[in-house]
Amino acid sequence: MAYIAVLGHGVVGSGVLEVLTTHTESLKKRAKEELIVKHILDLRDFPDLPYSDIFTKDFNKILNDPEVQIVVEVMGGLHPAYDYVKACLENGKSVVTSNKELVASKGAELLRIAQDNNLSFMFEASVGGGIPIIRPISQCLAANEVSEIAGILNGTTNFILTKMIREQMNFGDALALAQQLGYAERDPSADVEGHDACRKICILASLAFGTHIYPDSVHTEGITKISLEDVDYADVWGGVIKLIGSVKMLENGQVHIMVCPMLVHRGSQLASVDDVFNGIMVRGDATGDVVFYGKGAGKLPTASAVVADVIDCVKHFKTRKYLFWEDSKENYVADFGSMETEAYVHVAGETGDAAFTAAQALFPNAKRLLPKQPVDGEAGFTVSGLTEAALKEKLVALDERGVRVLNCIRISDY
Amino acid sequence: MAYIAVLGHGVVGSGVLEVLTTHTESLKKRAKEELIVKHILDLRDFPDLPYSDIFTKDFNKILNDPEVQIVVEVMGGLHPAYDYVKACLENGKSVVTSNKELVASKGAELLRIAQDNNLSFMFEASVGGGIPIIRPISQCLAANEVSEIAGILNGTTNFILTKMIREQMNFGDALALAQQLGYAERDPSADVEGHDACRKICILASLAFGTHIYPDSVHTEGITKISLEDVDYADVWGGVIKLIGSVKMLENGQVHIMVCPMLVHRGSQLASVDDVFNGIMVRGDATGDVVFYGKGAGKLPTASAVVADVIDCVKHFKTRKYLFWEDSKENYVADFGSMETEAYVHVAGETGDAAFTAAQALFPNAKRLLPKQPVDGEAGFTVSGLTEAALKEKLVALDERGVRVLNCIRISDY
Repeated sequence: MAYIAVLGHGVVGSGVLEVLTTHTESLKKRAKEELIVKHILDLRDFPDLPYSDIFTKDFNKILNDPEVQIVVEVMGGLHPAYDYVKACLENGKSVVTSNKELVASKGAELLRIAQDNNLSFMFEASVGGGIPIIRPISQCLAANEVSEIAGILNGTTNFILTKMIREQMNFGDALALAQQLGYAERDPSADVEGHDACRKICILASLAFGTHIYPDSVHTEGITKISLEDVDYADVWGGVIKLIGSVKMLENGQVHIMVCPMLVHRGSQLASVDDVFNGIMVRGDATGDVVFYGKGAGKLPTASAVVADVIDCVKHFKTRKYLFWEDSKENYVADFGSMETEAYVHVAGETGDAAFTAAQALFPNAKRLLPKQPVDGEAGFTVSGLTEAALKEKLVALDERGVRVLNCIRISDY
Repeated sequence: MAYIAVLGHGVVGSGVLEVLTTHTESLKKRAKEELIVKHILDLRDFPDLPYSDIFTKDFNKILNDPEVQIVVEVMGGLHPAYDYVKACLENGKSVVTSNKELVASKGAELLRIAQDNNLSFMFEASVGGGIPIIRPISQCLAANEVSEIAGILNGTTNFILTKMIREQMNFGDALALAQQLGYAERDPSADVEGHDACRKICILASLAFGTHIYPDSVHTEGITKISLEDVDYADVWGGVIKLIGSVKMLENGQVHIMVCPMLVHRGSQLASVDDVFNGIMVRGDATGDVVFYGKGAGKLPTASAVVADVIDCVKHFKTRKYLFWEDSKENYVADFGSMETEAYVHVAGETGDAAFTAAQALFPNAKRLLPKQPVDGEAGFTVSGLTEAALKEKLVALDERGVRVLNCIRISDY
């Protein structure tokens, strides 16, 4: 028998209990041991549940229970989640978490503690919800050198963009609808500003390349500035706008990592990832591009990923699991300004023609895009073959010449 | 140090050697042991290779070498692959194979022998080439009840269908092109008749549901009858034709399994899987639909999957791996004729209208499809809500009434 404690009985926590109680027999068969939830930590009371009697408000009851071998942390947030997880690992308990903030901020430290104590620290559910991605990267692709990862990692923004693309709903209305449907929170900034996607690409990058990348070292842009005109220009260009988290290993050993909206070609596997779905492309030297697709969030998908980790933990009590990466090092993330880029630029001037002519003076190789529904005084064009710093500088210069830059969206090559 | 023998130095075998020799350091790190290929079995001579001296023509040299712990079988075909693999497992050597014919025909028996001898028998490369699918199904989705799997499992036929859909190339020309490019063999029947896809869906079904399904118990149709008119009708219907291998767990504990061309809605993730790529959808009760996409064949993708299995083997010398299924049982595969179906039917009569009117007498709920390029005397329509047996019977009756049935393609619900 394997005794488990669950920290947090919110959406994911209650889902974990649901999966554990509805699949008891098949889980027992797969784990080769019975899985028993002994404690659930939550500050609230849940008097009407069949398992009401195992709730506790005292974390130390869990920490000091020698029978508990696995602690499932599904509280979210950094504190007290971090403190609890650290204490568990230091006290001989393996930990499974769905908490991407925790893994992105403290992964290297917690993996080190787990290793020192010969325990597992697992987090399949922290990226891509129910999509298996952590394990395939670390294990199935073990015989590959991963060179690049790019993904639609946030379901909320993908839902909003899908509504903008498919139904010409503007950003504000699409966000309001997402909130109404429970896909977006009242304060949607973690999603729409790209912070959630940033944590996830940091976790994937740390795992794939073996060195921790902290979210604050990543150039991150959200989708709040995207207009229906941009959607139209993307269509004319031949694709759609998606919020992409990407990381690429450069030849000098540095990584190019960023989160930003990107134009994705219609033929790309990522272009057809719609609504709240996630899609993650892993590029390996031997496998080529492999794409994982599925629901990136939600109670049961996330809970099933947590429980799969629990099963793996139980099967590996005697041998610590394979996940590991080193702490960050200096100059590991490449300077964003020096990266070469390709982008679509949306500008406004006295007339569209005048704005484009002014742009051409700065971007000699600019290619104009002609939208299906032109807006007076606006123009759109693509530029390539310059660095991020040069692009930024030229956009400022454009503004100084009286041409307003409405948006600038990078172009992906996948 | 872990000593390996490789049986077969063809496309995949030479790829395995390439991956092992170009990634030596990173593989050592991941496996936590050095991987050394000690023998390569092949009847041919390869005098110019840097590792020419480790070739042998004598299988017994490998079988009787106590240092060899892992045997990689990449010969293909059933004999002598089966005999060699069985002998290895009976003599204390774990086996990794890419041989789908072997796993589909002998999987249950070989898994049993592996289990009895506390060894690993692994075959990630047998389905989906470099796409991680065996391990995710068996492990990551451990906390799910898988209810259905459907996939584009054969790259050659998908390449041919893509050419027919995108470039209006007819079947014969597309096949000839596939042969010219090396995607199809001189005798293409294993691919175009669906046998290759059948072996793969048998492996996935056996793994997901725990009971071996042999290929000869599976209703299998190929793509040789598909015409450009069918492609046009599919387009009007709202989708594309794909060769799909599918298996579904029924409520009575039987499985509905088949391989046939199907109409797939344009919005489906499987519809955008083009060219030689594979896409596999796994439907779980908790995760919902998860799709895995990538190159389903090729030297390096397949070799990297083989080597990933080797690494996993090395890490689990002391604990047999998790893969297992029981041998087949009677009445496990549901009677194909009694399955409910939905299909598109393509017919020819004196006129298209007359053919459709005759069809309506037999299929009262038939819905006519009007193609963009109508052909004199032909009609297309969809039918639903009947069993496979009833459909077959009615198509015979239609023929008896002077309406020729040109094709009948099932409609998918994913």
